[in-house]
Amino acid sequence: MKITTNYKNLSKAVSVVEKVVSRNPALPILNNILLKTENGRLKISATNLEVGINYFLGSKIDETGEIAVPARIFSDFISNIGEEKITLTTKNNILSINTDKYKTQILGFDPKEFPIIPKIKNEVFSIIPAKILKNSLNTVLNSIAVSETRPELAGVLLQFTNQNFVLAATDSFRLTEKIVELKNEQNNSFILPRNTVLELIRLLGDTDEDISLRYSDNQVLFSTNDAEIVSRLIDGNYPDYKKVIPEKFISRALIKKDELEKNVRLAGLFSSNIADIKLSCNDKNLTINAKNSDKGEFQVVTAATLKNDPFDIALNYYYLLDGLKIIQTQNVIMEYTGQGSPLVLRPENDAKNTTYLIMPLRK
Amino acid sequence: MKITTNYKNLSKAVSVVEKVVSRNPALPILNNILLKTENGRLKISATNLEVGINYFLGSKIDETGEIAVPARIFSDFISNIGEEKITLTTKNNILSINTDKYKTQILGFDPKEFPIIPKIKNEVFSIIPAKILKNSLNTVLNSIAVSETRPELAGVLLQFTNQNFVLAATDSFRLTEKIVELKNEQNNSFILPRNTVLELIRLLGDTDEDISLRYSDNQVLFSTNDAEIVSRLIDGNYPDYKKVIPEKFISRALIKKDELEKNVRLAGLFSSNIADIKLSCNDKNLTINAKNSDKGEFQVVTAATLKNDPFDIALNYYYLLDGLKIIQTQNVIMEYTGQGSPLVLRPENDAKNTTYLIMPLRK
Repeated sequence: MKITTNYKNLSKAVSVVEKVVSRNPALPILNNILLKTENGRLKISATNLEVGINYFLGSKIDETGEIAVPARIFSDFISNIGEEKITLTTKNNILSINTDKYKTQILGFDPKEFPIIPKIKNEVFSIIPAKILKNSLNTVLNSIAVSETRPELAGVLLQFTNQNFVLAATDSFRLTEKIVELKNEQNNSFILPRNTVLELIRLLGDTDEDISLRYSDNQVLFSTNDAEIVSRLIDGNYPDYKKVIPEKFISRALIKKDELEKNVRLAGLFSSNIADIKLSCNDKNLTINAKNSDKGEFQVVTAATLKNDPFDIALNYYYLLDGLKIIQTQNVIMEYTGQGSPLVLRPENDAKNTTYLIMPLRK
Repeated sequence: MKITTNYKNLSKAVSVVEKVVSRNPALPILNNILLKTENGRLKISATNLEVGINYFLGSKIDETGEIAVPARIFSDFISNIGEEKITLTTKNNILSINTDKYKTQILGFDPKEFPIIPKIKNEVFSIIPAKILKNSLNTVLNSIAVSETRPELAGVLLQFTNQNFVLAATDSFRLTEKIVELKNEQNNSFILPRNTVLELIRLLGDTDEDISLRYSDNQVLFSTNDAEIVSRLIDGNYPDYKKVIPEKFISRALIKKDELEKNVRLAGLFSSNIADIKLSCNDKNLTINAKNSDKGEFQVVTAATLKNDPFDIALNYYYLLDGLKIIQTQNVIMEYTGQGSPLVLRPENDAKNTTYLIMPLRK
């Protein structure tokens, strides 16, 4: 391989790809990234066997070829040289990086040892603007179960129909559903692992591009012109989450979101070891009480507008904070659905399509 | 105790004091800060038994008193409420914090259990502008030994005469000496522990005040109008470091500091397990070589102006980087003092008063 490329582009590509690299002592080849010339571009790849990334970079290619190089030193080096033009040459699994000032040789590995990232050639079944995909994934992210006790909950359920794109996540303590109006080419439904969601959010960054989705054999491919992310999917049936969402509410309060968030955070300092705080809402105010026998106690009153009857509920304050974080509007809608039933949060402007639900604590 | 104070000032004071609080499971009272009315002000104190801090805050005092409160929850609470006026009231070792919106009770402890921070009433022996003190401590900080194998090296030697204020630190691999022209009231000399140096740098922040120093019984007090830091000193005799500093150099090079720093950092990526890189200087260039049998090799050339003969030297690149970090001038002076003798770095504008010395690696 002999190619010439631009420092800035290479540095950006490497920084994106490198984050997927796993520190896997059992399979050290995964600590590498693969550099390979492909269709007139340089392809930079990394995989942790669950998620694989390919990044394509316009380059002047004098000689095709490929090499696996340790991700860490390659990334540290490239991100610090600050040169305009870089020449990459390979010989006997050694990568030479030369610029006007620097002469560098990095010891690499046989590219044949690098795991194959699956290619998915099926038709595109959905096209989603990057900003919408990223925002939707961020909305449901915190409700994905971190534990793998129930593997099907350790991912987000993505559902595609010819009318919309629906995301749902729950760790059984809280649940988020996000509905996006979008016409998809084919119906589809699968569970995307939490790690892929995190990688995807990071990879999408601030891009304005459209993201194309392809599916095959329990794998999914998200792609732009320059980059691809291929992920395995979670086997199993996602629970019928719809039946957990109450159809009606008993009372509905409207509260300033920033003020509530701040007060919940303060109350959390005084919550007990099960992180509980108590909300009491009447037609003027929401009062938050917290008490911890080792630390002390706390009370704050927040103005609220209430429809229907006053209510009391005890909640885990972390879950309430997580819910408030995804509300982007000035006011949050809070729906009380009965004793022992979930509390529901919704944004003011998109109440029907965004649902965040918290199971109450037993009194 | 019953006092009213301003949120901003209290929040700032608590954030400064709180950092000294130790997480000491053997002596849980050290996890607290002491609030005490004293001479018409609120005194906020914390200590880890090595360093103690007192911060004085103008407050409206309706009733004198004192209490020890857990630092963490008090600090988290105060730094997040964002109110203008706060009333602090104590009763039965419970601290009530009330504002227009919040009602809070924090469980505290008997202030009598809180360790006494020594008072030093001796005459001031030195007054140092805060910026000069902070800059001087930062200059020598990295050369202080982190290990306690030789306790006297785990601090910085401070020497006060009627002509100057001299700081020296060495971990026996490198040494920094900083001389500040300053007339002191009394001669004095002591070893200040590394932790106190770190606290002092943090506490000095961006203040423009003069810092007064008092000494008594192996303790030193640094004070401004609003704050005091009292530290124990290290027992023992500091080695005669002056004899390690070469009196003459053989060759002297002048090199662009930022470029050298960047190139040393890159070379470091390819250093061996003893972190060695090799410098070769001739009358035009400084060439840096590094080689690691597992990673690869690296060479870079940096322009240099040399006085006298070419030289070669092998060094630990971390120590070279640490030295370059304290050079604030465009060019760095590099002095070669012979085979097996230290390499000396100096800033261009203050060469006589700032000395950073690195012991070479055996070839």
